[in-house]
Amino acid sequence: MLLDTAWRGDPRAVGKLISTVESGRPDDERAVAAAAFPRTGRAWVLGVTGPPGAGKSSLVDRLVTLLRHRDERVAVVAVDPSSPFSGGAILGDRLRMQDHATDPGVFVRSMATRGQAGGLARATVGAVRVLDAAGWPWIVVETVGAGQVEIDVAQASDTTVVVVNPGWGDSVQAVKAGLLEIADVLVVNKADRPGADQAVRDLQLTLDLALEPPEWRPPVLCTTATTGEGIDGLWDAVERQRAFLHDGARLTRRRTARLAGELRRLVEAAAAAHASRRVSGPRFDALVADIAARHLDPLAAAERLLAE
Amino acid sequence: MLLDTAWRGDPRAVGKLISTVESGRPDDERAVAAAAFPRTGRAWVLGVTGPPGAGKSSLVDRLVTLLRHRDERVAVVAVDPSSPFSGGAILGDRLRMQDHATDPGVFVRSMATRGQAGGLARATVGAVRVLDAAGWPWIVVETVGAGQVEIDVAQASDTTVVVVNPGWGDSVQAVKAGLLEIADVLVVNKADRPGADQAVRDLQLTLDLALEPPEWRPPVLCTTATTGEGIDGLWDAVERQRAFLHDGARLTRRRTARLAGELRRLVEAAAAAHASRRVSGPRFDALVADIAARHLDPLAAAERLLAE
Repeated sequence: MLLDTAWRGDPRAVGKLISTVESGRPDDERAVAAAAFPRTGRAWVLGVTGPPGAGKSSLVDRLVTLLRHRDERVAVVAVDPSSPFSGGAILGDRLRMQDHATDPGVFVRSMATRGQAGGLARATVGAVRVLDAAGWPWIVVETVGAGQVEIDVAQASDTTVVVVNPGWGDSVQAVKAGLLEIADVLVVNKADRPGADQAVRDLQLTLDLALEPPEWRPPVLCTTATTGEGIDGLWDAVERQRAFLHDGARLTRRRTARLAGELRRLVEAAAAAHASRRVSGPRFDALVADIAARHLDPLAAAERLLAE
Repeated sequence: MLLDTAWRGDPRAVGKLISTVESGRPDDERAVAAAAFPRTGRAWVLGVTGPPGAGKSSLVDRLVTLLRHRDERVAVVAVDPSSPFSGGAILGDRLRMQDHATDPGVFVRSMATRGQAGGLARATVGAVRVLDAAGWPWIVVETVGAGQVEIDVAQASDTTVVVVNPGWGDSVQAVKAGLLEIADVLVVNKADRPGADQAVRDLQLTLDLALEPPEWRPPVLCTTATTGEGIDGLWDAVERQRAFLHDGARLTRRRTARLAGELRRLVEAAAAAHASRRVSGPRFDALVADIAARHLDPLAAAERLLAE
């Protein structure tokens, strides 16, 4: 019932399903995933990531406006806890995103940080899947880049846009965090500030250093989200990368590799959770006491714990 | 038969058992662990770790000489691939350790690097156990500090000696690697070089910064292993720390905590190995294809893989 309503695109039903995914209750999460997944694969997922303060939210807002001018419906999932979509944002950001607040063609959802880092990435992927199943053709996922979670989320995108600012610090941080390797499009935002050209050159130079020239070399663009400067160019780059992926089996290969990565992480996370449940509590303590008393050796104890 | 010969202290039998532990064959490793473990707990294990080039091998050589002068039998397990006990050492080191080569009161064994990092730590712990079971009262484990493996090995000691050299770099590296937290005794070796006093002050200052003053504050000592300067003082510090641990239940608590940590790592490593076997191969690829065809969702596929 709720599912059918959601698949018809009802935003309240969609919101409820996302909350279910976010809840972390395994049975509910599985049920929603099982219902949503067969309906997915139609949306184009655009990931936008980069260091805090790079202006990702403003950029996303500009992209939403651009898509709405073309009459495209768009959903935004914000994983940054300091983004305009959560309580931590500055007033200006809030007001700006409110341009879209009453627009039924825009769906906005912020993802709350859950207990484990891995949980947030998983919930975000789940939320994107619900939106895809509910028929949103464009889904923009905004994350604050740096950690593994953000890379996992960014990798779940069809187009990954990495945003940095002029200045050496941002570019170096992006390189160190491995963001250059996942970027399809590189953006130097706040390009009205000094050093933007140098940042573009630095990033181009870093791309030149790749051992193997990639099939797709990410273009490096300048934008100024506050004025809208460069947004059309950014969109052209996204469209070129989309055309590139739609050529031959590339999109299928990329999405299959992404699903394989997701399955790998799910299995590894479940195994780690299985192990961590076993290495604490009274049973574990009793075995340690047995080992300390030399009644049992550690290898035998480990086998017992895992077999139970 | 081999076991009985080893437990009577025969060095060739002991060497064979260590090779078995090192082989990584699970059944053999388990059999040796099961036989050796009930006989362990009598040896005093002295871990010596620190950055490469700190002079650990020379220091260990001095400690061996000191123990032999007191008529104590001592076994040395060297985990550093560039140590005098493997092929990578410079001639001087080799010649020095050869002073003990014909001494039946000294057993020397170098541990070869195995496939995984965790494997080496595990093999080293296994080798120490064989030596303990075979009646060696003193076991010195020399590792090159920096990684988690070295920390695991150092933590398997009753006394952990961390060796650095004069100069800011070594001390900072030791702090960053978490070596200060596991040190029972801190040694500034090559103390005849400039900056030794400053290094001692830096390390003392870092110890002062500990949020909670520890029960045992590691003394910071100067040695010059090439001349023997400071070795007696180092040994006094080791003896003081031994007396501290022998006071009340401290030694039992420390060893029990160490066994709990070992059991935890064994369970986690087994779970990770279990997972990694499942996330590659034809069965994994077939499930990924099923997911890509939307016949199965990733969560359901992960459950299937783990249940099989």
